[in-house]
Amino acid sequence: MKPTFPIRASVFRKEHFNAAHRLYNPTWSMEENDRVFGKCNNPSFHGHNYELIVQLTGEVDPDTGYVYDAKKLSDLIKENVLRRFDHKNLNLDCPEFKELNPTAEHIAFVVYSLLRPLIHERLDLKIRLYETERNFVEYPGN
Amino acid sequence: MKPTFPIRASVFRKEHFNAAHRLYNPTWSMEENDRVFGKCNNPSFHGHNYELIVQLTGEVDPDTGYVYDAKKLSDLIKENVLRRFDHKNLNLDCPEFKELNPTAEHIAFVVYSLLRPLIHERLDLKIRLYETERNFVEYPGN
Amino acid sequence: MKPTFPIRASVFRKEHFNAAHRLYNPTWSMEENDRVFGKCNNPSFHGHNYELIVQLTGEVDPDTGYVYDAKKLSDLIKENVLRRFDHKNLNLDCPEFKELNPTAEHIAFVVYSLLRPLIHERLDLKIRLYETERNFVEYPGN
Amino acid sequence: MKPTFPIRASVFRKEHFNAAHRLYNPTWSMEENDRVFGKCNNPSFHGHNYELIVQLTGEVDPDTGYVYDAKKLSDLIKENVLRRFDHKNLNLDCPEFKELNPTAEHIAFVVYSLLRPLIHERLDLKIRLYETERNFVEYPGN
Amino acid sequence: MKPTFPIRASVFRKEHFNAAHRLYNPTWSMEENDRVFGKCNNPSFHGHNYELIVQLTGEVDPDTGYVYDAKKLSDLIKENVLRRFDHKNLNLDCPEFKELNPTAEHIAFVVYSLLRPLIHERLDLKIRLYETERNFVEYPGN
Amino acid sequence: MKPTFPIRASVFRKEHFNAAHRLYNPTWSMEENDRVFGKCNNPSFHGHNYELIVQLTGEVDPDTGYVYDAKKLSDLIKENVLRRFDHKNLNLDCPEFKELNPTAEHIAFVVYSLLRPLIHERLDLKIRLYETERNFVEYPGN
Repeated sequence: MKPTFPIRASVFRKEHFNAAHRLYNPTWSMEENDRVFGKCNNPSFHGHNYELIVQLTGEVDPDTGYVYDAKKLSDLIKENVLRRFDHKNLNLDCPEFKELNPTAEHIAFVVYSLLRPLIHERLDLKIRLYETERNFVEYPGN
Repeated sequence: MKPTFPIRASVFRKEHFNAAHRLYNPTWSMEENDRVFGKCNNPSFHGHNYELIVQLTGEVDPDTGYVYDAKKLSDLIKENVLRRFDHKNLNLDCPEFKELNPTAEHIAFVVYSLLRPLIHERLDLKIRLYETERNFVEYPGN
Repeated sequence: MKPTFPIRASVFRKEHFNAAHRLYNPTWSMEENDRVFGKCNNPSFHGHNYELIVQLTGEVDPDTGYVYDAKKLSDLIKENVLRRFDHKNLNLDCPEFKELNPTAEHIAFVVYSLLRPLIHERLDLKIRLYETERNFVEYPGN
Repeated sequence: MKPTFPIRASVFRKEHFNAAHRLYNPTWSMEENDRVFGKCNNPSFHGHNYELIVQLTGEVDPDTGYVYDAKKLSDLIKENVLRRFDHKNLNLDCPEFKELNPTAEHIAFVVYSLLRPLIHERLDLKIRLYETERNFVEYPGN
Repeated sequence: MKPTFPIRASVFRKEHFNAAHRLYNPTWSMEENDRVFGKCNNPSFHGHNYELIVQLTGEVDPDTGYVYDAKKLSDLIKENVLRRFDHKNLNLDCPEFKELNPTAEHIAFVVYSLLRPLIHERLDLKIRLYETERNFVEYPGN
Repeated sequence: MKPTFPIRASVFRKEHFNAAHRLYNPTWSMEENDRVFGKCNNPSFHGHNYELIVQLTGEVDPDTGYVYDAKKLSDLIKENVLRRFDHKNLNLDCPEFKELNPTAEHIAFVVYSLLRPLIHERLDLKIRLYETERNFVEYPGN
């Protein structure tokens, strides 16, 4: 049952990291930040176990049967995302969020921006990020 | 790493409710209903822990970093969906199913119809509903 | 690395069933039942996806390497528990709960009572029952 | 709240099977296979608990409220996929992989090819396959 | 199938909270703290989604069928544990950890100590705490 | 809220490995093996994603707040269990099962036997092993 044509499929790799963060807009008053971000505006920070899913879509290489080697994808995420964010304070330790509120939407955008230049343009890239089991986001690039 | 353009992303919120239901078509005979719906046609009802995922897609607000505040989305679902269906008998207690067989497909359609008028039209809405861990449906609107 | 002595271990099998139920005490007033059981006292019933874990503890048979064959344990649970309760209304359809309020504690007790006579007394039996992912009980026999 | 138009939705069914496999390309040297497939090229095989999700998308039948009966979908998958692959060695026991490296991408392609002729063309078919909780693929047909 | 004797069972309630923390021993040098606690000694803090399971063991009340009302147990945990720790920095915001390194073991001990006086002594109390899906602890009291 | 006495707690670490295996008793006929082990007696092997949970119980070190460092426990399991069994054929590649049928019970016994000498005797050791999400075993030592 060998395909006689290029197969287009997606491969997904799930990784996780733990980080502290605080949500606030420095151009707003503390009252306005409390009203909008509630408990997430705690100045002492809180934190999450983030679950990250990276999806690559493209043609399956007929020699390997892979869209992209899952081991290599895992290493790429570890080297370029986890090394930056795992066991870190996103607001204090990570220059990527110096001017960017570390909401799940923005973290997904940053992860996309970090990985996009490292993956061949013939592959589509999509990011899913779980802040908790019940709150998550998806960023498919623009 | 600040975006210089509007980011388009999805935010998801997961909620759950427990309900009893029975699947049958009142215009059919009991035999026909048994043939089509099997054990789900039990006249005494059975039930499920429904897991509901509401997805909103649109532009990230650059002031907040949110597509939609997950806390507000949770409250919206609780007020408009869970208050109606949680710990209820969908067939007996819920007027939404008086003329509609409460299959997972139809429940997803009803949830969509309840939430759609409450969410700005610039946001796309999609509903995923788990009847069990192994049976689930998705309704993206028509 | 062959054991030179009898090994004592536990084997667990997870099964699930879907059922409707109502919690109430028939010797109490409706007001008292509402006060104690809240939404669970809905006279039209509500329902759950119950996850059931049956644990057997005893010596590993050196000829098979099994405490108990997981396939046989699955069949035993299906025949004696799931056939009774799956897609049923516990209050209306199940004589086991005619005089017993179908709380998770009582369902676990009934499952234990149904299985105990069918399993050799050299094996200990313990029941874990999930009513939801966040509410569950355990009954190890008395 | 009855729809006055055909509703288009997706129904998903999750099944699982356990299998052994080995990844390698018979036209390559052992060294090249080790370099590309690493531990997955173990000539004695290794194995996985595969989780398979089959998605059908189409119009909801207004008489039943189903896109497709989940019980029938489960039976179809068991008869045509699980009977072939469950508790098997994909490389040795399954003719579908005689000339096809059993990567997750290729297994998803084979599952799609087995099911597509059995499902009415008015329904779209998509396959998601988990090799582990952290590695998975999706094949939506070409 | 009514029990003719008191049934002894356990009821479990799962709750979650998100918090930031840092692991270190103030009587040690930074080098010693780094050697022992590694990335967890980040002075800017990191964080987790903690999953907390509270187990109560005792006799089932024959009038209610409950060891303890799961709704009341949930409220007790929310009022006495989550209100203290959710969206907080355990080191900076929580007096309970002023002199206690907030390891999972110590958090479980603190949760036990907070709840024990509020639960009748005829019920045994046990705490399970997940720091991540792969790291967790249990404290059954001493 | 500092404990004034030694706290006794458990720490758990979850790891996973993928392996192929076959269940059979070499002193029996093929028919007898088929009768007892069914599909698990496939001579070409099948496989699983094994999830392994190692539990250590003992006193919390007041200087660190640890029963045992989770990172060290993870490394110990990787070095002594995963390196032996991950991506292996338990029957063909692993001398531990040369004379031992690789049932979940026996694998748990072997894991216990490998780890016991490496962990101080003041700590109790217990092994839980998931062969699938629905079949698992526990071995607490003898």
